[in-house]
Order: sequence, then C-alpha cells, then structure tokens
Amino acid sequence: MPEKPQILSRKQVAESRLFRVEQLELRFSNGVERTYERLRAGSVGAVIVVPMLDKDTVLLIREYGVGMEAYELGLPKGRVEKGEDMLEAANRELKEEIGYGARDLRLLKLMSQSPNYMQHRTQIVLAEALYEDCLEGDEPEPLEVVPMPLAELEDWVAREDLTEARSIAALFLARSALLQQS
Amino acid sequence: MPEKPQILSRKQVAESRLFRVEQLELRFSNGVERTYERLRAGSVGAVIVVPMLDKDTVLLIREYGVGMEAYELGLPKGRVEKGEDMLEAANRELKEEIGYGARDLRLLKLMSQSPNYMQHRTQIVLAEALYEDCLEGDEPEPLEVVPMPLAELEDWVAREDLTEARSIAALFLARSALLQQS
Repeated sequence: MPEKPQILSRKQVAESRLFRVEQLELRFSNGVERTYERLRAGSVGAVIVVPMLDKDTVLLIREYGVGMEAYELGLPKGRVEKGEDMLEAANRELKEEIGYGARDLRLLKLMSQSPNYMQHRTQIVLAEALYEDCLEGDEPEPLEVVPMPLAELEDWVAREDLTEARSIAALFLARSALLQQS
Repeated sequence: MPEKPQILSRKQVAESRLFRVEQLELRFSNGVERTYERLRAGSVGAVIVVPMLDKDTVLLIREYGVGMEAYELGLPKGRVEKGEDMLEAANRELKEEIGYGARDLRLLKLMSQSPNYMQHRTQIVLAEALYEDCLEGDEPEPLEVVPMPLAELEDWVAREDLTEARSIAALFLARSALLQQS
C-alpha cells in the first residue's frame, strides 16, 4: 500500500446551516498534486439501528426524505449528540422513532458513505430485547413502523421504496451476525 | 402512507466546485411546516460495479479517499457522463479502474445514500464475462486491484479498510443475485 498523500493545505470553501465544504491540496507519494473537495462531518458521528422485535422480525420506519422527494423505508438513525456514546444515541433514536428501547445493544460495523468525498461515519448498532418506551422526537409527522421478516430480506431490498445504501448494508450485516450467533 | 409534503419554496444557499446545497420549505399533509437542506446531485447519476473475474471472485480496488483520509477497499464506481447510459458508464469505469471490460452487464438496484439530505442516486451494476481492456482514467496514482473470494464476504466486510455503505450493500446484493441464478 502506498504511503498516504500529504495534505498541503485545507480551507473551507462553502457553508450552509447543515453542510460545510472543505478544499484540500494533496501531494501523493508519487509526487502528483491534486485539489479535492469533501464534506465535513458536523458531529461526532451517526448511528443506524437494526431493531429486532423478535429473532425473525426487524422494525423499519417509513419516513419522508426530501433528498429523494419520496416516502422511504429504512432503519432508525440519527446523529450522536454531545455527551452520548454510540449505544446511548442508538437507544434514544429507537425510543424517538419506533417507541422501543433495547436491553441488548451491540456495535456491528463503522461505515463510511462516500470515502472520497465525505467525512461522515455511521455506526451500525444491532438492538435486541426491546421494551416499550417512548421519547418525543422532532419529526414533523408520526413515523410509520413497518415490521419486516428477516427471512424476506431479499424481497424487501428489491423494493423501489427501500433504497438507502446504509440501511441495505446494515440489514445484511445484521442478518449475518444473527446467523453466526444462532 | 400520507400524502407527500408540498414544496413551498426552494433556493440555493451554498455552492462550491463539487457541491450545491438547496434549502426547501415544506408543508406536510398535517399542516406542519419545516425548513430542510439537501445536497443537489450534479449529474445524471452514478454507478457502482461488482466485477466478477469468475463466478467466485470479485475484483475490488484500493484507493485513497480524502473523506476518510485513508486507503479504502471498495468497488469501482463513478459518475455517469453526458450521453452515456448506466451500462456504458459501468463498462467505462471498469476499463479505467481495473483494466477489464465486461460482456455481461446487469442493473441490480438503484440506491440512495442519505434520502433525507442527498439527492444522489447510485446504480449497482453486476459485471460478468470480463475481458482485458484498459482506458486511461484520471487517477493521481495507479489503483491496486484486489481479488476477493465471494465465499469470504463476511470476513472482508468486517475489515476496517472496507467501510463504504454502497460497496457493502452492492456486494451482498450481488451475492444474492448470483445465488438465485445458480
């Protein structure tokens, strides 16, 4: 593996309420220099949670995504807030988005989204031993909770309203983890 | 499923060479109004390709990603250029990044990245019947091609240098598709 490129300079080139864009000048180990842009990650990270209602059933949510301008099925997720660890953030998001907490929370995998252009990391958390517990979230309308039999994963990820790469990756990784432990 | 929110207004609030941020005012069907930001997708889309060297072996690439500031394993991918369709873009990216073309290219799934915040879509393409053919790409240094036995997928996606959600989702979806046809 080559030596990592040297970062010659970096500066912020655009900013909005949610997004910050940074421009970087890199020199690769072969001497080639290039200018890149990347999105800065604004927080300590994000979690995406695979909540198992029982050993065969995942709880998905249906939520409007203005990026896609569509109602999309996906897993509960959100930013890690200051002072929280990943598991605390996962449990809070569960309570806010599906009305359950979990007694058994496990880190499965730290994912990137677009390693060439984004600094963002998302931790997949597997949540088992659920119990009813509700926290008020900041959703503009109630989220619909949709149970998905894990045995039907291939059919569900073929749906046109289940498209998010992180949700698809997390569902497959959770199924593998659950198969390995059974 | 509720009626889709109404888009009351939209305007561009930040721009850089690569990124454009749009602010949207939405009114949900229950009357709640909210302001959102999303990244505009700059092109007609992107492809991520699962190249099968033979029926058991996927070809990954190792590439520096300035988002993660690390060398990452992942699948060949890139933007669809003007005048190309998805399959043409996939075949060009293969030739540029791994030095193969493919006689058999198949659309597997259209993915989103972050449906709440990004407009970007990535088409997964399964590539079989490879033949050697090289096109010059615009990489600052040669990419390393790394063969991965599909039977070892679970071990590989556990690696700390294979993190991209789109690559992980595409690998699992390709394995499912190949298992179904065999």
